[in-house]
Amino acid sequence: MARLIEELRRLPGIGTKSAQRLAFHVLRSPGEDAERLAEAIRQIKKHLRLCSVCNNITDVDPCSYCTNAVRNQRLICVVEEPTSIATVDRTRSFNGVFHVLHGTLSPIGGVGPEQLRIANLLTRVAEADEVILATSPTTEGEATAGYIAAEIRRMQAPVKVTRIATGVPAGSDIEYVDEVTMTRAMEGRREF
Amino acid sequence: MARLIEELRRLPGIGTKSAQRLAFHVLRSPGEDAERLAEAIRQIKKHLRLCSVCNNITDVDPCSYCTNAVRNQRLICVVEEPTSIATVDRTRSFNGVFHVLHGTLSPIGGVGPEQLRIANLLTRVAEADEVILATSPTTEGEATAGYIAAEIRRMQAPVKVTRIATGVPAGSDIEYVDEVTMTRAMEGRREF
Repeated sequence: MARLIEELRRLPGIGTKSAQRLAFHVLRSPGEDAERLAEAIRQIKKHLRLCSVCNNITDVDPCSYCTNAVRNQRLICVVEEPTSIATVDRTRSFNGVFHVLHGTLSPIGGVGPEQLRIANLLTRVAEADEVILATSPTTEGEATAGYIAAEIRRMQAPVKVTRIATGVPAGSDIEYVDEVTMTRAMEGRREF
Repeated sequence: MARLIEELRRLPGIGTKSAQRLAFHVLRSPGEDAERLAEAIRQIKKHLRLCSVCNNITDVDPCSYCTNAVRNQRLICVVEEPTSIATVDRTRSFNGVFHVLHGTLSPIGGVGPEQLRIANLLTRVAEADEVILATSPTTEGEATAGYIAAEIRRMQAPVKVTRIATGVPAGSDIEYVDEVTMTRAMEGRREF
């Protein structure tokens, strides 16, 4: 019992109390339920891995994005998490490939460049025409974008490095927009 | 009494019930209160007007923006409402002047180009280097920006027409951004 609680407690967002509650639930539930859970955990590790090219979660390596001949393999969109791929894909206006960092730089959280999947991004840059930095416009996301841009520049590769626009969200009234966003919207204005 | 209710009902957002409630409040309150209210209404009409250049609310005509020699009078930021001036001014990154439309085009609401202060914008364009269209990225705001851009283009004036950036708001996680905003953020990406 103590071992299960300990293992559950390693999961993100699960404290001792939650771990105990979950462990007791497993204890009380039918044997086949517990077996299915255990098997599902085992299966996911057996069948899913990170793509060796872009670090996306995949069942085949390289993933279906990285082997898709219809997609522009020379246009790389850098995102924080695998879930961000769906956010960009839903726009249906992006036909390139992705690179998942699995986090953002966070000195406070103890996340340095080595903890992120930046090294294998830099190896892809030589084969790319453009790298779009689509990390969030948060402090960490901006710092991460800045770090990557500097690293790419240092390589002196003939690649274009771009950043997604920060601005007033579509459908919003500018009345309700904060100063930083409005400043960026003005700075980022484009010829009509 | 009926006349006051009728007058109050003309105010935006005041229905018959509210107008009655307000009228009864005036009726019940001391005479000097009512007099002060009446006087305040009279004073505002006496002392405030719209700037003949930019349509901003002002006590002197032209307004303090339009006569400010420190501001770049050849850089015009077009906004929907007088209150939007504060939104742009707070960024402290804009040193031009304004032009207030007093609304947006809205075929449903019966607002056509004649109902907006567009005519006196077009007379300013010949003296400008850049017109920034800072209407909201809503359906009406976009339509208004599009209409004005087309009108300026038709004049063939050598003026740059720009649109504020639509994108992910500063501090937001891209996970939570809608498709349209994300599409615009990708389209509007800038060289890092």
